Amino acid sequence: MKNTSTLVQTQFLSAQDVVAIVNRLGLAESLRGMADYIHADYLRWQDFDKHARVGNHSEFGVIELMPIADARTYTFKYVNGHPFNTRLGLPTVMAFGVLANVANGVPQVLSELTLTTAIRTAAMSAVAARALARPDSTRMALIGNGAQSEFQALAFHHLLGIQEIRLFDIDPQATAKLMRNLCHTGLRLLPCASVVEAVRGADIVTTVTADKINATIITPAMVEPGMHINAVGGDCPGKTELHPGVLSQAGVFVEYEPQTRIEGDIQQMGPDFAVTELWQVLQGQAAGRTAQEQVTVFDSVGFALEDFSALRFMRDSARRLDIGQPLALIPALANPKDLFGFLRPLPQAAARAQAEAQRSNQPETALA
Amino acid sequence: MKNTSTLVQTQFLSAQDVVAIVNRLGLAESLRGMADYIHADYLRWQDFDKHARVGNHSEFGVIELMPIADARTYTFKYVNGHPFNTRLGLPTVMAFGVLANVANGVPQVLSELTLTTAIRTAAMSAVAARALARPDSTRMALIGNGAQSEFQALAFHHLLGIQEIRLFDIDPQATAKLMRNLCHTGLRLLPCASVVEAVRGADIVTTVTADKINATIITPAMVEPGMHINAVGGDCPGKTELHPGVLSQAGVFVEYEPQTRIEGDIQQMGPDFAVTELWQVLQGQAAGRTAQEQVTVFDSVGFALEDFSALRFMRDSARRLDIGQPLALIPALANPKDLFGFLRPLPQAAARAQAEAQRSNQPETALA
Repeated sequence: MKNTSTLVQTQFLSAQDVVAIVNRLGLAESLRGMADYIHADYLRWQDFDKHARVGNHSEFGVIELMPIADARTYTFKYVNGHPFNTRLGLPTVMAFGVLANVANGVPQVLSELTLTTAIRTAAMSAVAARALARPDSTRMALIGNGAQSEFQALAFHHLLGIQEIRLFDIDPQATAKLMRNLCHTGLRLLPCASVVEAVRGADIVTTVTADKINATIITPAMVEPGMHINAVGGDCPGKTELHPGVLSQAGVFVEYEPQTRIEGDIQQMGPDFAVTELWQVLQGQAAGRTAQEQVTVFDSVGFALEDFSALRFMRDSARRLDIGQPLALIPALANPKDLFGFLRPLPQAAARAQAEAQRSNQPETALA
Repeated sequence: MKNTSTLVQTQFLSAQDVVAIVNRLGLAESLRGMADYIHADYLRWQDFDKHARVGNHSEFGVIELMPIADARTYTFKYVNGHPFNTRLGLPTVMAFGVLANVANGVPQVLSELTLTTAIRTAAMSAVAARALARPDSTRMALIGNGAQSEFQALAFHHLLGIQEIRLFDIDPQATAKLMRNLCHTGLRLLPCASVVEAVRGADIVTTVTADKINATIITPAMVEPGMHINAVGGDCPGKTELHPGVLSQAGVFVEYEPQTRIEGDIQQMGPDFAVTELWQVLQGQAAGRTAQEQVTVFDSVGFALEDFSALRFMRDSARRLDIGQPLALIPALANPKDLFGFLRPLPQAAARAQAEAQRSNQPETALA
């Protein structure tokens, strides 16, 4: 009978494996590759079976599942959001995910997605900003200098041409860490004493804060004509970053409207507040920025399609670089209708062969 | 700085690890332990944050995610259902799952759930039958003799006292396989030429068929007074096993009504067709079987709570038996706000130590 061991094998990409992939490609190339995969998948938005993510909320945070599929490939991501975790020495956001074959349900790749999510979120921000920010943008404000911030900074540097970043975080050590991490990148990094100071004169404003509160980090008074606001941190019910007045005066773009209405900064607006889904802009079916003076907002919450792209990118990169190892997640059955048989000890022939192998390793005298 | 490596460690239970656990405990004890965990969790049904599962359907089958949580523990299961898989040499149902800490989101256990699901489904059927079948039941009909069937047979043997099982499958080889697998268990196994023949005179009828069609495997003419019908195989939209007339004349019990209305055999009935959730019976809030002559149906579809119990049971058993291995699913960060730092090559001191270790393994002359 056919053995299913190769058919049901899952390839595992550990946290260290993804570090190895990113270091072999370089972070700039990883961000660029990830943005290309995301853009390509958004161009075929209509091919996907989409769900709003499923969250289990507690007083400490949230754990979410984000499934999506096209006709050939299924992916999901597990991701948590626990704002107090850093006090325990743990990351705020941790993630992993699986890519599976729609035709037979085999989970083909299990990958870490903590590091990968930071790269895909930054790449997604860049994909949106390429369509929405002024093409001559060179200065960005970066509010929130935590775990995701360096990835945002480098995505906008390499993919948008941002040269100067004005930094603010309520934790000055976070800003100091970012400056240490990015000191050799060629970016001009300017720590600021307040959000107002950081935002003043910026072409692009990126907010990537972690507190699970209805914050108003950006107020209408801070907004200047022509700004693009990349609002990344307001991404679940009760967690916002923009004053409603910022939204009402801007062109607002979202990933997947049903999910963003619940989770995005637009949770503060009425259900008929007009937004545009980004795929429409990327496919040329809707306008992005319509004037030099217009204020645009990308109300980013992170959508399953981006993780689909991210898992595809990591799978393809891992294959090309021969990184990763097999994981026995699914039993390899001699007969697929005989799951019970998998419980049996090795068949007699195999057991005999094993016993003989052991015997032949022992000194001859032991057999006498 | 504190290293998070132990805090974020995921314990991995492979398919072989779960085989080792079940063989160490014995299958009877595994079924009994699993039933105890399920029963205990059903007794605190109100503690759980419940969702209907999220499925991505295709022409080939379905891939589902089943999340659930109480105040301390979160679990989800990934499971597929692909009726044509056996023709490809693959199991119809494959599964894995994760148990995580609600307080911080860390995925603590990643386990195979293909084998585990077969055990938990059989244990759940037994938990329901203990509350619903006639206590003097000794004869069961088992319709569908595929991957799940031996587990159902043994659960009813060990937990309900079933002594004789009458078998039918459209594939005679499946029945022959079951008889080989269970020939030393003390069960009296009688292969039958038809469903009618298998069901005649049975105290309990278990249907565990795989075809994704609206089948009518059990018709009203087959049903005898006092029977308990354990309907396991009708578990997604368009996949049923019982003629509606069987349901309309029986007391029907379900796991989680919102899910079973969509997926169970009761998808054929109107939205006001009366059903009882099983937890109400187990908690003494509703009656189970009310008369010797009553026909009862457990319209089982498999609910996330049972996988929560199953993952708890496997985690606790693995700990006790010291089975499993750590998996680097989540990066261990020196500073949780410094994900970017995880990309850096090893610090100089560690790199030097590693280089020295390599050098000391080389012959002395190589250093000359």
